[in-house]
Amino acid sequence: MRVTIVGIGLIGGSMALALKENGFANSVIGVDSNPDHQQKALELKLVDQILPLEEAIANTDLIVLAIPVNAAEKVLPFILDHTNRQVIMDVGSTKAGLLHAIELHKKRGRFVATHPMWGTEYSGPEAAIKGAFVEKACVICNKEENDADALALVEKLYQSLGMHLLYMNAEAHDVHVAYVSHISHITSFALANTVLEKEREEDAIFELASGGFESTVRLAKSNPDMWVPIFMQNKENVLDVLNEHIAQLRKFKACLEKENFSYLKELIEQANGIKRILK
Amino acid sequence: MRVTIVGIGLIGGSMALALKENGFANSVIGVDSNPDHQQKALELKLVDQILPLEEAIANTDLIVLAIPVNAAEKVLPFILDHTNRQVIMDVGSTKAGLLHAIELHKKRGRFVATHPMWGTEYSGPEAAIKGAFVEKACVICNKEENDADALALVEKLYQSLGMHLLYMNAEAHDVHVAYVSHISHITSFALANTVLEKEREEDAIFELASGGFESTVRLAKSNPDMWVPIFMQNKENVLDVLNEHIAQLRKFKACLEKENFSYLKELIEQANGIKRILK
Repeated sequence: MRVTIVGIGLIGGSMALALKENGFANSVIGVDSNPDHQQKALELKLVDQILPLEEAIANTDLIVLAIPVNAAEKVLPFILDHTNRQVIMDVGSTKAGLLHAIELHKKRGRFVATHPMWGTEYSGPEAAIKGAFVEKACVICNKEENDADALALVEKLYQSLGMHLLYMNAEAHDVHVAYVSHISHITSFALANTVLEKEREEDAIFELASGGFESTVRLAKSNPDMWVPIFMQNKENVLDVLNEHIAQLRKFKACLEKENFSYLKELIEQANGIKRILK
Repeated sequence: MRVTIVGIGLIGGSMALALKENGFANSVIGVDSNPDHQQKALELKLVDQILPLEEAIANTDLIVLAIPVNAAEKVLPFILDHTNRQVIMDVGSTKAGLLHAIELHKKRGRFVATHPMWGTEYSGPEAAIKGAFVEKACVICNKEENDADALALVEKLYQSLGMHLLYMNAEAHDVHVAYVSHISHITSFALANTVLEKEREEDAIFELASGGFESTVRLAKSNPDMWVPIFMQNKENVLDVLNEHIAQLRKFKACLEKENFSYLKELIEQANGIKRILK
């Protein structure tokens, strides 16, 4: 199997590593608009060669789109225009807009919309790691719109990575990720800014930061070039969740202002319910 | 050195383990109002014996208060009334109220106010672990109010745990921890409640939760009996930071509503500044 990875960063690079190691890919072509990333991907042996997109398409069986979601939305129609029997998949964090952009394309069936639920706060080819994806969930959206062979190939790919598959439509996916991923990033960014503002006055503040702080703030290192397009594309859902989250924070605020400590205890006990989900 | 630990939970239990292992304590007496915790602490060999508080005070050189901050504020004057040459220290997350409560006590100099910056989201004697505290920071507050021998003993204790010491006054400590610890807990609790509300409608939502979600929400497992008193005692500082945090979140909200994506990028780039602090 000849695989092309478009965008050799954290996700694309980690996938290239895994697919070469497990034998799913015999060869991996890299496509990347950033010359530094091209060179780094070769140096780190994430890919076997770098080619321009059109040439890569012509010489591959499977194309993995691992670029920011706004870029994916632009390039996917072009790739579909230039493919014949190849299979194309993406790994992006939003789905409704992308699928809407190609819903009438005559090659629609060749594109499988996927979202492997794995990532770190780092980006670029240097962030690629071995052993990513294992035992994590991967969502496949609108599979009923896929050619059977295209879907089967992508399912086989994710199974080779040790992921378990979930199926849902693009709209449901975008709501769910607003809750379990996008809002976590916003709270982390906002928390970092809250504390960084204070740091201007108080140099020593971070000497006290311990594991709890690091844990809630680490996502604030995430790359804006990836996250601005995600928030942009999932604007309505993210706003809904953000409004709910601010309302929840206001409950804590009201408890403190009114010294209503029994309700504060109730709110924390409710939050402890997360133990059912996070072991 | 005979050490008494009052409150054999996550912090008290972990400290008992460490002080016995490194030889700082020859024997450890446990004091705990919860009979289950008493028994568990003996079973887990966190302490050598359990005694009532007064009897423990009479038979010890150093008393470590490791109970919720509201309980510490109540019991500390009693302990000072009953001590002679013993040294007393606490490990609580707030300091101004506690020190205010004893500022005129004639044994004030025997009490060293400390805050080792280590913890997990778990509680009780079963949560105690070996190797806690190592290479973390510990704050000592208002050291100028201490008897020299009491301060020296407590400094020696923390050095034996491998912690590095920071000194500040109680008010500065309480402001700093509002920023680097207390607000993280509130955002985590509120985020858990945001998502748990949604889960009532959508069973599948947590199948998608990945590492980023877990990281920002794990503190939501924390014990209300510990955290309500902390928020209560540090109410003013926590409210200040919470108001700032809500204001930061509103900036993200406004960017999305107005589709001001260049400012959204700026906000995220600002937040990336946290890389300077978290390696």
